[in-house]
Amino acid sequence: MKSPIPDATVARLPLYLRCLSELRSPDEHCSSDDLAAAAGVNSAQVRKDFSYLGSYGTRGVGYGIDDLAAQLRKVLGLDTKNPVMIIGAGNLGSALANYKGIDTWGFDIVSIVDIDEAKIGEEVDGLTVESIDNIATIVAARSIDIGVIAVPARAAQDVADRFVDAGITSILNFAPTVIHAPVGVTIRRVDIAVSLGILAYHKAEEERRA
Amino acid sequence: MKSPIPDATVARLPLYLRCLSELRSPDEHCSSDDLAAAAGVNSAQVRKDFSYLGSYGTRGVGYGIDDLAAQLRKVLGLDTKNPVMIIGAGNLGSALANYKGIDTWGFDIVSIVDIDEAKIGEEVDGLTVESIDNIATIVAARSIDIGVIAVPARAAQDVADRFVDAGITSILNFAPTVIHAPVGVTIRRVDIAVSLGILAYHKAEEERRA
Repeated sequence: MKSPIPDATVARLPLYLRCLSELRSPDEHCSSDDLAAAAGVNSAQVRKDFSYLGSYGTRGVGYGIDDLAAQLRKVLGLDTKNPVMIIGAGNLGSALANYKGIDTWGFDIVSIVDIDEAKIGEEVDGLTVESIDNIATIVAARSIDIGVIAVPARAAQDVADRFVDAGITSILNFAPTVIHAPVGVTIRRVDIAVSLGILAYHKAEEERRA
Repeated sequence: MKSPIPDATVARLPLYLRCLSELRSPDEHCSSDDLAAAAGVNSAQVRKDFSYLGSYGTRGVGYGIDDLAAQLRKVLGLDTKNPVMIIGAGNLGSALANYKGIDTWGFDIVSIVDIDEAKIGEEVDGLTVESIDNIATIVAARSIDIGVIAVPARAAQDVADRFVDAGITSILNFAPTVIHAPVGVTIRRVDIAVSLGILAYHKAEEERRA
């Protein structure tokens, strides 16, 4: 079995893909320095990360932008469609449904559900809000892989349990709380307070040094 | 000068704070195992991370929950108010303005601005949307520390430049693009496609192994 790629590298791969899609180069090649500058890491890190993919570039020429992007998409499983369901049709869920820049990566939001009777039937970015009671049927019928939690913290664990019961094994959690799921279910958290907390640290550190 | 805390540890500190606020314990102590389970890391990592803070807990007793939370808040600069401005009063900006769970951490959204005349004057979670043309004045008057970019990708760099011109040195970017800023400005990215990409990798890896 091929050894898995370290988590820290995995976390940088989609970022490299983002940067590659924005790099413009006359000869369609880029150096590890170009990518490092775009991604905000150092170039030794870039070369090490790509070595896990078996990509070493060519000395004096660099990496072929299209080849590298195709390889990243393949490793990341973005070479096929990934149908996504959002739970929560409030401001955040609606913002996510409208969020441009994920569709080009093969993520396809195919359902948005809510518990609130008043929201069911509303239109959000071309989707009709459906009832949370039907999630098992919807997930099976539309081969949904990924569930996004866009509900308040107090409802998040219940929603996660419903995703798991419906057979979803990849969950992206926007609720500001830690949720738990059985082994075999991958959870990523987008915790805005955590991101703000990291910014606050750097600011505080600057003040402590001054 | 005290050596700075490694970035990977800094990134976990707000997560520990989040977990501590949710831990319930009869004697108001928790072990590194408790915290590790809540945060989804291993307990050796927890102990190592806290060693950077000079917190070692007490053998057989663990860490005092309140003490540790207070220490984390201090290190992270969350023991004072951090006024925040959001640029972009669309779905995402509105969702962020309404987002509960950041106010308890001392983040205080004091302004939301937009470029769109039609949005200026609207109410969002008790705030009146202001014009982006006034950001320098607003930032100075309300001592704003942190700027949040909630605009489409094509407008993100321009908005970042305006933040920097207005004197903001901490930026949280939700736009799906890489933005650049001068040395001395800290940028954190919340790239939803990147988070989804990491989930897709784990799913693809599972399928490759099966």
